[in-house]
Amino acid sequence: MKSIETKVSRVIVGKIEPNEDLIDSIIKMVNKYDIKSGFINCIGALKKITIGYFDMESKKYLTKTVDEYVELVSCMGNISFRDGKPIIHLHASIGARDYSIIGGHLIQPSIVSITGEAYILEIDRKIERVNDPQFNLSLLAI
Amino acid sequence: MKSIETKVSRVIVGKIEPNEDLIDSIIKMVNKYDIKSGFINCIGALKKITIGYFDMESKKYLTKTVDEYVELVSCMGNISFRDGKPIIHLHASIGARDYSIIGGHLIQPSIVSITGEAYILEIDRKIERVNDPQFNLSLLAI
Amino acid sequence: MKSIETKVSRVIVGKIEPNEDLIDSIIKMVNKYDIKSGFINCIGALKKITIGYFDMESKKYLTKTVDEYVELVSCMGNISFRDGKPIIHLHASIGARDYSIIGGHLIQPSIVSITGEAYILEIDRKIERVNDPQFNLSLLAI
Repeated sequence: MKSIETKVSRVIVGKIEPNEDLIDSIIKMVNKYDIKSGFINCIGALKKITIGYFDMESKKYLTKTVDEYVELVSCMGNISFRDGKPIIHLHASIGARDYSIIGGHLIQPSIVSITGEAYILEIDRKIERVNDPQFNLSLLAI
Repeated sequence: MKSIETKVSRVIVGKIEPNEDLIDSIIKMVNKYDIKSGFINCIGALKKITIGYFDMESKKYLTKTVDEYVELVSCMGNISFRDGKPIIHLHASIGARDYSIIGGHLIQPSIVSITGEAYILEIDRKIERVNDPQFNLSLLAI
Repeated sequence: MKSIETKVSRVIVGKIEPNEDLIDSIIKMVNKYDIKSGFINCIGALKKITIGYFDMESKKYLTKTVDEYVELVSCMGNISFRDGKPIIHLHASIGARDYSIIGGHLIQPSIVSITGEAYILEIDRKIERVNDPQFNLSLLAI
């Protein structure tokens, strides 16, 4: 276990509009406000969502794109940086018309149908990611 | 994408008691502390829960009420205001005895069986909702 | 409904390493930083997870241990204390290779496969738990 201690600085509340991509929109917020790093909670409704499951054998994400109107039931994760670019790491679960749920690692494209309501809690410290060759994934460099 | 920048002001920790409604209880906290707006995380256990799925054709929520003891596995969302009254927008997923999960938009009645443990992060800015005629829903006015 | 008002003090960002237990790692963070109390959001990937469903008849948790690589899709909850020892109360949902989700109350052992990314928001007040004989569970003493 590794850890760092920091403080909350700002809160950004975002409204993501119909046909906008969830991750692109959060990247825009990061750039607009020059967000250092932080964590994200988001709910809303989507018309398309791509979720991933990391396959330990191939060291790649298996992905599934759902082209349906769904509720974004949970979406949480964090903002960090790799090579100067923001990495938005989110996990999401979505609810269908029959209230069943599927979920995983959030991937693009994931497109808003009605609205996305995001709360970003900025922390007062920039967190970087570096590639971990064991998994071929960018993990937190703390 | 629209967005605002604000700060965290207070944190309210709430314990919702058996037979209390989750949303009513959060409204009581909003009134008791005069909470400006903010976001909510809640876990607990319920004896009844009502969840909704927004149907894009009828522009209405389809709803389902579950009368079972369930774990409140995730519950996240936010506090805003419409016409001076607090709107508690939450999405929830619940876990059954066989650990299966269903979820959606949280609707009343949703009644605590054992306890509800809510963390409210208040922000230093009042957020309003206005009706969006395209969906017949109150969306964030930011 | 009972409630208290407090402030955010620090944010601890933790990276939980492969083969570490999620709850043990958060307890280590609580001890390392002398965290008063607070709430937790965590995502990541696990190789083993134990989830519980509280059975109202026996007043005990039914439990299930999953020995698979899974995405930790949502994990939220809080830190409090009982008899001076930290209690990490988390509810979690996990996503399988087919993107299906199960979930419940998080129990040990729950072991990281790749990484666990935890954000802890510390509050400026120590929250205690006491046993509620009605349920034989430690509930928030607020």
